[in-house]
Amino acid sequence: MKIAVILAGSGVFDGSEIHEATLSLLALDQAGVEYQCIAPNIEQSANVNHLNNEALSSARNVLEESARIARGNVLDLAEAKSSDYDALLIPGGFGAALNLCDFALKGPECSVNKNLEDFILEFYQDRKAIGAMCIAPALIAKVLGKEDVLVTIGNDEGTADAIEACGAIHENCAVDSIVVDEANRVVTTPAYMLASGPAEAWSGIEKLVKKVIKF
Amino acid sequence: MKIAVILAGSGVFDGSEIHEATLSLLALDQAGVEYQCIAPNIEQSANVNHLNNEALSSARNVLEESARIARGNVLDLAEAKSSDYDALLIPGGFGAALNLCDFALKGPECSVNKNLEDFILEFYQDRKAIGAMCIAPALIAKVLGKEDVLVTIGNDEGTADAIEACGAIHENCAVDSIVVDEANRVVTTPAYMLASGPAEAWSGIEKLVKKVIKF
Repeated sequence: MKIAVILAGSGVFDGSEIHEATLSLLALDQAGVEYQCIAPNIEQSANVNHLNNEALSSARNVLEESARIARGNVLDLAEAKSSDYDALLIPGGFGAALNLCDFALKGPECSVNKNLEDFILEFYQDRKAIGAMCIAPALIAKVLGKEDVLVTIGNDEGTADAIEACGAIHENCAVDSIVVDEANRVVTTPAYMLASGPAEAWSGIEKLVKKVIKF
Repeated sequence: MKIAVILAGSGVFDGSEIHEATLSLLALDQAGVEYQCIAPNIEQSANVNHLNNEALSSARNVLEESARIARGNVLDLAEAKSSDYDALLIPGGFGAALNLCDFALKGPECSVNKNLEDFILEFYQDRKAIGAMCIAPALIAKVLGKEDVLVTIGNDEGTADAIEACGAIHENCAVDSIVVDEANRVVTTPAYMLASGPAEAWSGIEKLVKKVIKF
């Protein structure tokens, strides 16, 4: 079994949330499941100084920054084949809603990175499980909204409304729990949409990964 | 109880090893122990593209990059007071041997960031526990070598020799174990000096954090 983990940079405010990504890899590794980190080779939509939330002057590349979380071993999404993997996992962080799609800026009117949209649809069509956490379920809602996909981003009403405007169904969920769409094989958890720290994030992420593997 | 976690940037090749730092925070949070991430406000000694190991053209700041791991909540080392904390934890990654000291370049002849040296010595003099992982024990060896401190970086002979040239004692150690210097209250573990992935790193880091808390 091998699982594709989609990264969106490195850092909660302009990339993948580092704890969520790391804890996803920990849960996979503890379960004895191989993984491959994958990211689009594109410029980041935003470059944020995480100390003061100001914009950085220099541009950063999503694939290069994702390589920091992946310890160098990250594959260009354009070269990834869904047939090489048994399931898909997408950690959160603003990068998922800025670099992988522009949900953070346009809500339900957002568009999704074309390579990633195709990649997600292939997993869906091949009946492979898809796990997403934090804000990443919004991306799944946009791609699979027409399938009445059931997801959670925790309990934020505005975000839940935007997700339902994509055609998806939103269900509130506690930080240590998961929402499972059995028919569509989609598993989601709030992670840092609600977590106060890494232990709370881990409580939901570990459950999500176990369920994704079990499908 | 509150523990100071020293970061050195964000990314294994020029900063703190992201998994080690994240898993340190997870272990502390799971134990119900508060932590504060702290980093020096200095330029990185190296700036490495983690995709291809080439040098980046633009400079990065250790405190700003550390903020990515700390989700924004990181304190300037120059403003940190050791009296606010009960123990000290230093994850590894090349940043620990490039930005916190220059052991990666000069081995036993290295010098340590002055603020950090003073900070470590205060914890030592106050009989507070110090935990270090991966290459960070080399930093402890340099600062506390004259105290015959006992540490591990795993089993790499060249690095172990350089550590002993600092006056410290090196003991080989498996990835899932720790070396404890009871007299000096120093705990070390190899982490990614030996780990093949996050699960192996976690096996040693969790033990290290539990022992640091117990002192």
